[in-house]
Parts: sequence; structure tokens; C-alpha cells
Amino acid sequence: MAPPHDEHLKSQIAEGEESMAAPADKRPISTIVIIIAMQAEALPLVSKFRLSELPDSVFPKGVPWVRYYGIYKDMNINIIWPGKDTVLGVDSVGTISASLAKGACIGDVFLASDVAFHDRRIPIPVFDLYGVGLRQAFSAPNLSKELNLKVGKLSTGDSLDMCPQDEASLTANDATLKDMEGAAVAYVADLLNVPTIFVKAVTDIVDGEKPTAEEFLQNLAAVTAALDQAVTQVVDFIAGKCLSDL
Amino acid sequence: MAPPHDEHLKSQIAEGEESMAAPADKRPISTIVIIIAMQAEALPLVSKFRLSELPDSVFPKGVPWVRYYGIYKDMNINIIWPGKDTVLGVDSVGTISASLAKGACIGDVFLASDVAFHDRRIPIPVFDLYGVGLRQAFSAPNLSKELNLKVGKLSTGDSLDMCPQDEASLTANDATLKDMEGAAVAYVADLLNVPTIFVKAVTDIVDGEKPTAEEFLQNLAAVTAALDQAVTQVVDFIAGKCLSDL
Repeated sequence: MAPPHDEHLKSQIAEGEESMAAPADKRPISTIVIIIAMQAEALPLVSKFRLSELPDSVFPKGVPWVRYYGIYKDMNINIIWPGKDTVLGVDSVGTISASLAKGACIGDVFLASDVAFHDRRIPIPVFDLYGVGLRQAFSAPNLSKELNLKVGKLSTGDSLDMCPQDEASLTANDATLKDMEGAAVAYVADLLNVPTIFVKAVTDIVDGEKPTAEEFLQNLAAVTAALDQAVTQVVDFIAGKCLSDL
Repeated sequence: MAPPHDEHLKSQIAEGEESMAAPADKRPISTIVIIIAMQAEALPLVSKFRLSELPDSVFPKGVPWVRYYGIYKDMNINIIWPGKDTVLGVDSVGTISASLAKGACIGDVFLASDVAFHDRRIPIPVFDLYGVGLRQAFSAPNLSKELNLKVGKLSTGDSLDMCPQDEASLTANDATLKDMEGAAVAYVADLLNVPTIFVKAVTDIVDGEKPTAEEFLQNLAAVTAALDQAVTQVVDFIAGKCLSDL
């Protein structure tokens, strides 16, 4: 197995469509919801797709989540950003805000094939599987081939760093990619039966020489540009296609 | 500091009230929402308060969450249980389902004074505080005195067991109690500005001689009885009182 890689630029794309006569997978995709954890990653795409922040939020009063909306190539595009922590002012990263709202070199962009958790250890039969929470992403072979995106397994945990127990679980998950939101988004998308793909850009290497936090902050701007380009290409690819075309 | 104790019986009580002329803390409490992670813990209370499972759920279609509702002593009582995992059939424990839906001897029942996470390590300034997510529970000194409940700090993580890094964070949180949901409920309650108290019964000791899973399952039935008795007493105490009376 290739050494696991860390990554923290998060972009999960969920596709929905209204009820119509044709089977769901044969109708043109009409609505895209993109969940992005950090504002620095979201704003270039908000600009690119000419989205507006909606004042009449669909979210409960008091939450910091932000929804940007607009129409692009005949599709409803939504970008959901969990917002800044109301007290601390930092981006609301991690699995809880992600669930509520929604292998590699640095700069590489991946599609995740499978997602799972590496920090939910519940050593009781069946509960152990619940903790790992393995789920498959929506399969999009034409998308990954056409855009030349690498495909790898994604493992999710609430810490930026990695303790030995988390690392063992990440290895057991056979993961090439690590993030802090993906498996939580997959859990909710699965509950609500929403097809979801995971576009991930690598910001730092788990087993690299530099401390994770330093490497993460150093690479954030450059990798954000790579991610934004990839997400734009993905949305352009989806336009006019059905689920079964992906 | 006393050695940290493990506990996994979860009962978070959130109090809400409708908008009226009197200040919020001077009006009789009219609505109680109780979040309980495991069905074995919830059912005795459903029976006690004569609640019914509501078919017309307030939750999105497809989620396994269950709402029991009824009127007891002139208060609207809701018990929310995140339900069984739709594929695996186990109770949906942990922070994500809790957030979506919301020191000691074994059998001891505590009120938590503060709650925080011990498995969200983000070593970047300010993000580190966001990860720990320390929040105070609603202060209820009369309640704890009247019912003779111990008071302690609660620390939350998504694993039943405890790795050294989690244990160090739990110690840093000065926690007497450990659970798998509390700080996630506190996070959402804080966002929505809902006063919340945490009633916790101890099922197993973190540094005890027996493996956590074995001890947890062995004590579950007995401790559930202690918790149900305590929650009943808490609800009886709340009946007819205002927030400021607690």
C-alpha cells in the first residue's frame, strides 16, 4: 500500500434532482450542493459560478452556516460553508459541522471511491463496523477518466494530527487520503439517499518531515487554486448529463 | 484530580419555551427535549411518561431518528433517540448522530457542569480551542442540591475505548465523566441558544481492571434503571418551574 497522505481541502459534491417521469439516473442533473469546510476554499468558486449569499437561509436561526446560490449552465448550484465559529472566529471544520450542514502529492486532486472513519473505535461486535462507517461514494468512472483525476480511498477523523491508534485504523481502511469531514457527509448523504462524490486536494503528507499544521498552512493557498480548478471542471462536466453518464 | 471515569448512558435534556410576555427565565418551562443514544435507555422513560412514537416525524425522510412525544405535568415531553443504524441495526451512538438529532462509581448519576471534546486535536492557534469545544451546561444548582446529584465535568469522544492522546486531553479537560455524545449536543444547543443540562449515569470505569466493552455491556441494564429514575426525578423537579428556579 502506498503511504497514507494527509489532505484537508474539502469539497463534497452532492447531486439531487426533482421528481419527474424519467428514472432518476436518466434525467439531466439539475441541482448540485457543494460542501466546503473553509471560506478560503469556497470564495473563488462563489466568484467563478457568480453565486450570491442567500439572506433567507434554509438553516435554523442562529447557526453560522452560509449558503451561496446561483444558476450556472442551467443547474442550481449551492455552496454550503459551515461558517466561522460564532465565538472563536475560525472555520467550523470537522465532522459535526460537516454532517449538520452536508494517495498523493501536494496539489494532487482525487476522487474518493470509498470513505470511512479512523477515530471511532467501538470494540463491541457490529458497533465496531458502525464506528468505521465504511461507505462507497457515487461511482463516476467517466468523470475521473475524462478529467484525469486519481481515485483513492478516503479516511476521516476530527483531528488534524494523527495518533498511532488513528494511523492503524487509517491503514486498516486502506486509505490514500485523510480529511476531517468526508465520512460524516457520506453518513448523512446515505441517510437522505443523495448521490455524492468527493473531490479532494492534498495539502500535506501524513508521514512528511514537516509538522502537519505548518505544512497545511503553507500549502493552503496553492492547493485551494488546484481544488477550485478541479471543482469547476467537475461542475462543467456534470452540466447536461444524467447520473448514469457520470 | 480524581481518576477519570467512563460513562456511556446518555441523557441530555434541553429546555425550550415559547415566546411570551414574561422574560424567558421567569416563565414556567413548557417543553423538554430529552436526547438518549440507546433504545434500552429510552424505552423505560417512554413508558413512564406515557409517550407515543410520532409517525409524522419532524425529521427528514429516510433518517432513522425516532421522536416520542406526550404531555406530562402540563409540559410537552419529547424523547429523541437517533434510532438503529439502517444497515447494521445497532444504536446510532456517537457525536454525529447526537448533533443531528441534538467522576464516579458505577450507577452514580451526575449533572455535567462543563462539556468538551477529547478527540479533536487541531494544533493550530484558535483552531485548537475550537477542537476542544469547551462549553458550560445550563447551571441548575437547586436541581442538583434537591436531587442530591453529583456535579462533574464531562468529556466527549467518538470511541468507546481510550488511546493515550485521548486520555491526556480528557485529563486536560479536568473531566470526571466520559461519554460519546455530550459535547456535540452542547455545540448544537449553543448554536440554537437552547438551555441544556446533562444527566449522566456511570456504566464503567476508564481505568478499571475489566475491558471497557465487557464492563459496559455487563452494567448497562442496572445503570439504565438508575438513569431512568434520575431523569424522572429531574422532569418532576422541572414541572411548574422557570429556568431561573433551576
